[in-house]
Amino acid sequence: MDVEQMVVSMCQAAKKAARTLATVSTPVKNQALLQAAIRLRQDSGTLLAANLQDVEAGRDKGLSSAMLDRLTLTETRIEAMAEGLEIIAELPDPVGETLTQWRRPNGLEIGQIRVPLGVVGVIYESRPNVTADAAGLGLKAGNAVILKGGSEAFLTNSAITDTLTAAAVEAGLPAAAIQLIRSTDRQAVATLLRQDRFVDVIIPRGGEELIRAISERSSVPVIQHFSGICQTYIDAEADLQKALRICMNAKVQRPWVCNAMENLLVHESVASRFLPTLFADLEKAGVEIRGCERTRKIAPQVKAATEEDWRTEYLDLILSVQVVNSLDDALDFIHAYGSGLADAIVSENYSHVRRFLHEVDSATVYANASTRFTDGFEFGFGAEVGISTNRLHARGPMGLRELTTYKYIIQGDGQVRG
Amino acid sequence: MDVEQMVVSMCQAAKKAARTLATVSTPVKNQALLQAAIRLRQDSGTLLAANLQDVEAGRDKGLSSAMLDRLTLTETRIEAMAEGLEIIAELPDPVGETLTQWRRPNGLEIGQIRVPLGVVGVIYESRPNVTADAAGLGLKAGNAVILKGGSEAFLTNSAITDTLTAAAVEAGLPAAAIQLIRSTDRQAVATLLRQDRFVDVIIPRGGEELIRAISERSSVPVIQHFSGICQTYIDAEADLQKALRICMNAKVQRPWVCNAMENLLVHESVASRFLPTLFADLEKAGVEIRGCERTRKIAPQVKAATEEDWRTEYLDLILSVQVVNSLDDALDFIHAYGSGLADAIVSENYSHVRRFLHEVDSATVYANASTRFTDGFEFGFGAEVGISTNRLHARGPMGLRELTTYKYIIQGDGQVRG
Repeated sequence: MDVEQMVVSMCQAAKKAARTLATVSTPVKNQALLQAAIRLRQDSGTLLAANLQDVEAGRDKGLSSAMLDRLTLTETRIEAMAEGLEIIAELPDPVGETLTQWRRPNGLEIGQIRVPLGVVGVIYESRPNVTADAAGLGLKAGNAVILKGGSEAFLTNSAITDTLTAAAVEAGLPAAAIQLIRSTDRQAVATLLRQDRFVDVIIPRGGEELIRAISERSSVPVIQHFSGICQTYIDAEADLQKALRICMNAKVQRPWVCNAMENLLVHESVASRFLPTLFADLEKAGVEIRGCERTRKIAPQVKAATEEDWRTEYLDLILSVQVVNSLDDALDFIHAYGSGLADAIVSENYSHVRRFLHEVDSATVYANASTRFTDGFEFGFGAEVGISTNRLHARGPMGLRELTTYKYIIQGDGQVRG
Repeated sequence: MDVEQMVVSMCQAAKKAARTLATVSTPVKNQALLQAAIRLRQDSGTLLAANLQDVEAGRDKGLSSAMLDRLTLTETRIEAMAEGLEIIAELPDPVGETLTQWRRPNGLEIGQIRVPLGVVGVIYESRPNVTADAAGLGLKAGNAVILKGGSEAFLTNSAITDTLTAAAVEAGLPAAAIQLIRSTDRQAVATLLRQDRFVDVIIPRGGEELIRAISERSSVPVIQHFSGICQTYIDAEADLQKALRICMNAKVQRPWVCNAMENLLVHESVASRFLPTLFADLEKAGVEIRGCERTRKIAPQVKAATEEDWRTEYLDLILSVQVVNSLDDALDFIHAYGSGLADAIVSENYSHVRRFLHEVDSATVYANASTRFTDGFEFGFGAEVGISTNRLHARGPMGLRELTTYKYIIQGDGQVRG
């Protein structure tokens, strides 16, 4: 069987499994998750042996030490995967929730009910923990999951999937509930992306390049997560103590994530009071600062920011700073350069805050808090599937509910249309 | 300026206008709609003159009389467009609604707020009333609208858009709130479908062929409406009076629409009692019946149904009938042949109804009512943007709310992430 036929058969099997999964009870799904956690621990020897082969092959291929580290499984990492599945088992089942229900004048009762998306394809890069994570989340939301991991983790992902599938089957679920595309042929992904008859959504997890390549080629809807160019605006009426704390957190706590601050906007009336203190703290934390002309008048040691800097997601200890004349200028900057993920205002002025919250059209808009809260766990979702920069279907942090859709159930007693 | 540049400029202008429209107050949007209704009536002479040129050109090109009829404007049709806009003005504004709001343990208040989608592209075929209808709905939901109508209605659509834009500008909205692509060059649509930077969603309105062609080529998300292959299942424990009324309504009342019944499934234990009466009524109504072997044993006059018949959306006075052994067989049939739009069970048995409602994964699933209710007006939405067969974002009848998305507004007092 060639790779194309193989992928099509897997997608068909997934579609069939999805029909079963949609009506499986919560305890059965939880049982599959808990059983998978037990089996991951039991099978750790097999998993580590498979992983060792991947790591050795990766070393021979000259993978960077960062990549090798991400690829490497340890007892601790296996334990974390198992605990992750136990946490998912404890989360409320999103399926079956009545979103709204109403009665029409003709007596028809119309209910909008949450149901699984169906078949979810997850394409990801090296970290093998995504295999368990994505399978667990997809399954809990009642979906059949088709996984395609990075080729460097081929044997590791295969071993993890074998373990997960055995647990699913033991709990009474179809074997095709969780499937891994076991091919490193590029044709495999290309085929998957064309199966809109069988696959309902593709979720790519990885760098922007991977996501763009998938989005461009997919006939299946893709839930995208592009870049996070996040701004924090320090208003003329900001509490500068809060501003300092929020800026340090947004830039320094975890600079390589999408919700970290990339551009700082400061109102001209507070710039000379605020920036020297902030810059001292940032420099202590190892942050390189790039500023506009007015920033550099206040802090001459700062490097000049270029037009390119305002558009760059550094994901690093680098910050671009612009002094602005007004709230309007800050709003214009955010609309021009922001990526619509997370933006914050620091201000004690009611009307300024209100305008910012209304007019900034980003997935998450903050008043007096760090943009770092744009995260499924911080939102209280209990799990995170990812953060969507799409405008349709799901926007911002995605939990289990975002892996579902709805259907309408209409109950009558013989109604016909007049 | 070439057509590609023109379309890109329009999309950029729309994106800019969308920023304004997102925060415009409800009275201003309503004023634009009401003013547009007044102007359509005032400008009826101009509109009819433009339309006459289109109709004459269409006649010269040999358009069918059905197409010419759809293309033709009359005073009555202009009045209907104007009234349509007045109705949209009366509907509640979906923008700004708080969908949910909660407080986190750290004191952050997270609100999920309904906001416009942004820039909506509508591609449609001959009926010029779609111009006013789509523009009105898009505008009410706070979106900038880019319209691309059929080439045969070029002058009519241009005249209608001039009128609508004048009203929008008079009400204080940007001129780019409503734009028509004034080109019959095929490159225009191709360019529009690539503007994912500026256009947030494409809604095609027309036949399946148009929709498939657009979906395949678009890098902008498309809200699709493919075929409607709707089933009605008459259970062993059906009330046959209700069944008769529901079947006649689902097949005969308006056979050319997507929510009309195409396949009838009848449990074997009631087939010989039910089908002769039904067929007599259907034949009186001019319906051609195609049946399985068991159907033809009961009613030998019926033509044999082929495998192709079960997969066909007739949109006509034709019905395929299959006698089934069980509810399970009916569910299997629906999963195999249905298009997931609307399916109904007629039964007085509680458990059969419950299983059908749970297990049929269609956008709308009915117990003891006609599938013809799958419609935004019948659902009480007050307006219909279309019926989505997508699983993501919007499923089933779409009203104004389905032309919106959401953002999260997070209010704090200095919170940072630990």
